[in-house]
Amino acid sequence: MSELDEIKQQLREFVKERDWEQFHNGKDLAISISLEASELLECFQWISSEQATKHNLDDIKDELADVLLYAIRLGDLLDIDLKGAMLTKLQKNKEKYPIEKAKGKATKYNKL
Amino acid sequence: MSELDEIKQQLREFVKERDWEQFHNGKDLAISISLEASELLECFQWISSEQATKHNLDDIKDELADVLLYAIRLGDLLDIDLKGAMLTKLQKNKEKYPIEKAKGKATKYNKL
Amino acid sequence: MSELDEIKQQLREFVKERDWEQFHNGKDLAISISLEASELLECFQWISSEQATKHNLDDIKDELADVLLYAIRLGDLLDIDLKGAMLTKLQKNKEKYPIEKAKGKATKYNKL
Amino acid sequence: MSELDEIKQQLREFVKERDWEQFHNGKDLAISISLEASELLECFQWISSEQATKHNLDDIKDELADVLLYAIRLGDLLDIDLKGAMLTKLQKNKEKYPIEKAKGKATKYNKL
Repeated sequence: MSELDEIKQQLREFVKERDWEQFHNGKDLAISISLEASELLECFQWISSEQATKHNLDDIKDELADVLLYAIRLGDLLDIDLKGAMLTKLQKNKEKYPIEKAKGKATKYNKL
Repeated sequence: MSELDEIKQQLREFVKERDWEQFHNGKDLAISISLEASELLECFQWISSEQATKHNLDDIKDELADVLLYAIRLGDLLDIDLKGAMLTKLQKNKEKYPIEKAKGKATKYNKL
Repeated sequence: MSELDEIKQQLREFVKERDWEQFHNGKDLAISISLEASELLECFQWISSEQATKHNLDDIKDELADVLLYAIRLGDLLDIDLKGAMLTKLQKNKEKYPIEKAKGKATKYNKL
Repeated sequence: MSELDEIKQQLREFVKERDWEQFHNGKDLAISISLEASELLECFQWISSEQATKHNLDDIKDELADVLLYAIRLGDLLDIDLKGAMLTKLQKNKEKYPIEKAKGKATKYNKL
């Protein structure tokens, strides 16, 4: 079984055991991903990347994991092929940011 | 190669070709995950989960993929074993939310 | 003195007394506004607006206040006339969403 | 009339003219504040505070205004006295971060 499928199965069991399917809808899972992304970002608040990595790496791992867990759960609920979605989006990003125009620039695609 | 490793490799190439390593630090990647999580959430703004899934599923797939892509990229930059981090965090979540106390409740662990 | 100016002055003093000016830059204040907005949103996670207002109103007040406090602080740091900025943006929003096109619709302006 | 009340009144009219009261509930307004906070944060993505202020100040003003507009709107909907809520929360923050313990430190209160 692939990694993503393995986590997906474990999450299904985790949710089912707690009778939480009733709370898991697309909107609240999207909210949850956003909340976990903020908890991850909080590890970097007021300090530099270097300081955060040095002092908060364990918290960063936990919060990044929570983002991924909720993302995989939402993918399962909406029956999305996550690997396929990532490859499709990566291809779109390549087209939005052609190498010759985007090279060395942090500019958003609509201002390139 | 595992799915997560395969995406990680493709992202490395994508970033390198555009000479974007200079912009990719932990703090800005954490910001980026949060911004993409908001774009995902925007697909659900003002409407129900059912309406969002019916009308915005393609956008949801793309934005969820962007969250995952940046999360995998941050994991690569900080040399985090993502599958291991997810399994570790899932175990912590099981302990924070014991079945007998959490069953059927949406209450946060510190108020259980 | 206007309300916004009064809060601005109190925040200046609060920050100065704690020698926190060194941490207050635009980027970290923008991060902070986003983090507080997430804490506000967390009051609504998994539940309906009605349930949230009934059970979490005190927390909602506190988190909404934190969003406003950081927003006023960022405005002060960047020397932005907040009332003017709000009136200007409200006017732009009126033009982005003309009554005849937007009436009764939750559609984003670029899809109207 | 105070500044906040003046904006509140203008927002009521803006929403009413567009028949948008049907969409304005606490949860979706909290989502909206979070989305606007992300658009503000996007002005600082990949760059320093100084670069952002130099190149994106007009966008920063607009997005900060949108955060404030939605915050005032949510306050109106939930009948919150915003100035009172800010003064109350500022007092709580003073107690969470006593000068002698917090001076010169960016540490979160629960780790002080």
